[in-house]
Amino acid sequence: MSKAETATGVKLGRLGDYVGFRLRRVQNQLSRDFVNATANRGLRSGLFSSLALISANPGISQAELSREIAMDKSVTVSLLDDLERRGWATRKRSTQDRRRHALYITPEGERELEEIFAVVSTTENAVLHQLSPAELMLLSELLDRMYAVCVREE
Amino acid sequence: MSKAETATGVKLGRLGDYVGFRLRRVQNQLSRDFVNATANRGLRSGLFSSLALISANPGISQAELSREIAMDKSVTVSLLDDLERRGWATRKRSTQDRRRHALYITPEGERELEEIFAVVSTTENAVLHQLSPAELMLLSELLDRMYAVCVREE
Repeated sequence: MSKAETATGVKLGRLGDYVGFRLRRVQNQLSRDFVNATANRGLRSGLFSSLALISANPGISQAELSREIAMDKSVTVSLLDDLERRGWATRKRSTQDRRRHALYITPEGERELEEIFAVVSTTENAVLHQLSPAELMLLSELLDRMYAVCVREE
Repeated sequence: MSKAETATGVKLGRLGDYVGFRLRRVQNQLSRDFVNATANRGLRSGLFSSLALISANPGISQAELSREIAMDKSVTVSLLDDLERRGWATRKRSTQDRRRHALYITPEGERELEEIFAVVSTTENAVLHQLSPAELMLLSELLDRMYAVCVREE
């Protein structure tokens, strides 16, 4: 892989051996498209993912959320402050364990989430359509296997 | 894919249909490991990739570099200022086109790059070893195909 060359003739050199670089540039691009498309909402990185995970897992804890989005706990706290300020999610004291917060999405949050999902579909479309459905499944599986080991190591 | 569940039982919900989320969390994790391992050097995101690409492509232009790392031109300029300040790279006026800068790595930059590559190998190792060499090649190919369409669209 070390002799990889890009479509434009630029050589990746030894950087081509590191998957982190390849991940980052695809992700930078998707991120930029997403930020541009949602500029009117002023969504910080991680806000949309957090909202989507809270919606899919009513009552999820802060620690679980933090692990799933791979963000530091302090960043997660500040994302949750932001979500509460917008009225899109709420923290409730867990009935099982008073020290822990259970997170829930609000109806307003669900409406916003619906709209943001529609935007993401559009921005990811061109890129994802480069891969066949089978390749997409495979890509997701490979990424999830890589992520699983990150989580185990902590 | 929409019913994907993580190893820890957290549901991805509709987020599981978006490859951007999967890319981001693996990349966040690799990035965090990299930042921790190179904390003494205080490397900003993109600095290492830029240095490696300049090393592999002596005389590369600012615009080419910006496209390869998927960073805005203004960010690229500030990364190059940083690299020059550290004495790791230099800008020279192109002899063919006086308006454009040709970028070169310095011997000091090459020494630093060597050390940083050694650190990256260590931080990426645990994650990359989840995949077989064939799977790694495939992952790189899929990511590059996705990136190629991003570049074409600009």
